[in-house]
Amino acid sequence: MKRAWENNIRKVVPYVPGEQPSGNRLVKLNTNENPYPPAPGVKKALSEMDADAFRKYPDPSAYMLTDALARRYHVGADQVFVGVGSDDVIGMAFLTFFNSKKPVLFPDVTYSFYPVWAQLFGIPYQMPKLDCDFRIRKEDYQGENGGVIFPNPNAPTGIAMGLEEIEEIICDNQDVVVIIDEAYVDFGAQSAVPLVSKYENLLVVQTFSKSRSMAGMRIGYGIGHPDLIRALNDVKYSYNSYTMNMPSIILGTEALKDDPYFYQTLEKIKKTREETKIWMRELGFSFPDSQANFLLATHKTVKAEMIFEALKQEQIYVRYFKSPRLDNSLRITIGTDEEMAVLRRFLETYLNIKSHTDRFC
Amino acid sequence: MKRAWENNIRKVVPYVPGEQPSGNRLVKLNTNENPYPPAPGVKKALSEMDADAFRKYPDPSAYMLTDALARRYHVGADQVFVGVGSDDVIGMAFLTFFNSKKPVLFPDVTYSFYPVWAQLFGIPYQMPKLDCDFRIRKEDYQGENGGVIFPNPNAPTGIAMGLEEIEEIICDNQDVVVIIDEAYVDFGAQSAVPLVSKYENLLVVQTFSKSRSMAGMRIGYGIGHPDLIRALNDVKYSYNSYTMNMPSIILGTEALKDDPYFYQTLEKIKKTREETKIWMRELGFSFPDSQANFLLATHKTVKAEMIFEALKQEQIYVRYFKSPRLDNSLRITIGTDEEMAVLRRFLETYLNIKSHTDRFC
Repeated sequence: MKRAWENNIRKVVPYVPGEQPSGNRLVKLNTNENPYPPAPGVKKALSEMDADAFRKYPDPSAYMLTDALARRYHVGADQVFVGVGSDDVIGMAFLTFFNSKKPVLFPDVTYSFYPVWAQLFGIPYQMPKLDCDFRIRKEDYQGENGGVIFPNPNAPTGIAMGLEEIEEIICDNQDVVVIIDEAYVDFGAQSAVPLVSKYENLLVVQTFSKSRSMAGMRIGYGIGHPDLIRALNDVKYSYNSYTMNMPSIILGTEALKDDPYFYQTLEKIKKTREETKIWMRELGFSFPDSQANFLLATHKTVKAEMIFEALKQEQIYVRYFKSPRLDNSLRITIGTDEEMAVLRRFLETYLNIKSHTDRFC
Repeated sequence: MKRAWENNIRKVVPYVPGEQPSGNRLVKLNTNENPYPPAPGVKKALSEMDADAFRKYPDPSAYMLTDALARRYHVGADQVFVGVGSDDVIGMAFLTFFNSKKPVLFPDVTYSFYPVWAQLFGIPYQMPKLDCDFRIRKEDYQGENGGVIFPNPNAPTGIAMGLEEIEEIICDNQDVVVIIDEAYVDFGAQSAVPLVSKYENLLVVQTFSKSRSMAGMRIGYGIGHPDLIRALNDVKYSYNSYTMNMPSIILGTEALKDDPYFYQTLEKIKKTREETKIWMRELGFSFPDSQANFLLATHKTVKAEMIFEALKQEQIYVRYFKSPRLDNSLRITIGTDEEMAVLRRFLETYLNIKSHTDRFC
């Protein structure tokens, strides 16, 4: 029998995050983590951190971190909002900016949290279809709407949109807030941050989880007009004044100080990605031309789910989404050269055996 | 001129957190922080933490921490929910459990975030008045409602309610979720945690920010029936799967291991509180009999706001709420004996001069 208090529980379809298996032998290419450690300065700052200071509340404005971000991205400190990962920033942005009766627009194939947030906060939404090549059609974002959000590069396709097209979409939607989710931008797309000085309705969101190798620290940020940032902070202070803990503030600030290391790891990942594209094509995979740190790969003959299960048996974890348009693809994170070599060796053997057995079936 | 996108911005009255002034000379008694450092094991675990691990996502279930809490409080791991401070836990609980057309009930004088959350999520609420001695009247929580929440001890009065009375309130409200906010319980009140095995509708919330000296780490938790915890997790996973960063999980777990240190600092604070009550009474202050780590003090002749400003001049920070029923009181955190001695010396001089000057006015 249903208990009375259950009637008042919010109905949600919870998002299922990627598995976080543990063990040393495994090759983990399922959650788009960076295979390289954070900047060396982070380790040093961690070793110098004062545990006694934890007895006090952190600075609710996380000023040290917002200021460092502002300098890094050449904007004012009042143009930066920080949160517990970009999920916190975007969730807060849905709650703050998308209070319209008109639907918020985002692609049918995109980050799977967008519809979840919309449902959580009772926000109407529509999901225009990507074209057959998995590209966003900018025309789909020209009608009346309650807001626009999409990632650039899009996830899980990895396809980047040019800045001119993005500007057209922002320009066409000046009555609503447009959010560009740049979780993967550092791996090869152009950032829309320079456009925030031109468009008051633009919020650009980035994260420390991918390009800065700090998923475990939970740091995300939004950059936009001071009025947008003020509105976000008002809602944030209404919900939880102190979201960023001391280690996040201190270590996040530190990570921003080492640009050479940042670009060096990015170049390594991009090189590995381009090499991976070559050998995967040779093995019979096709994929959109990813500018992110992952590939969305489909094999010409073997079903994605079968490959996924076979890989898992070998403790090689990739991501498989059992959802329309994606259920014959694998999202494979770009790891180190060594990790990709393990993946390659297995796939070569597996697909070779597979093609032989299939022939005699 | 108002821009179109501003029409869709959520209207909120942001909560204003206590000041976080910095400097070495100051005596900070304004945000109920613990004057003693976290358990020594926390420092050790911090020094052993591996910065390279930050490249990966944390465990979204924060199992290490929920399991340690479950063992510490003799409940199942499926009865514990963790969040970014108790504000995150309670905010999430408002969003999850209070979706009724009937008003949620909490006292008129209590933690100032409750009405803020209700407004943020559009939840109707009513605030029954505390009695003249600032006590919660349990009869006020007997009518039809959409849920009940209050702190025990209440803040900022510090008054504790006995467990029997609390059980009556829970028992009278089995059709809704009842939340007991035990942020200050360790300083001298009885916890309702033992009641969770008896009442499915009870959620008890505690925090590492006060008694465990870890405000800077942002760790809170709720204990309740597995069905309540599941509902909270569903909403949490819909909003942000990875809220607890690696340092919170690791250091929070560590803090739970040292019960002797925990009780030792609690005893020190309680001793200082009782001594403070004596000399403050001698100086002409009155206050409810606090069982928390603060006193809500009113002077018999000098206005609270004047004392507040005079203390601030001396870099002694206490909390002053300019709100009905509280605007002639100061909330003073119990610090170390040394900090309380600084406060005492200043107040003795200040009130002495004040009474002389007032006499000749």
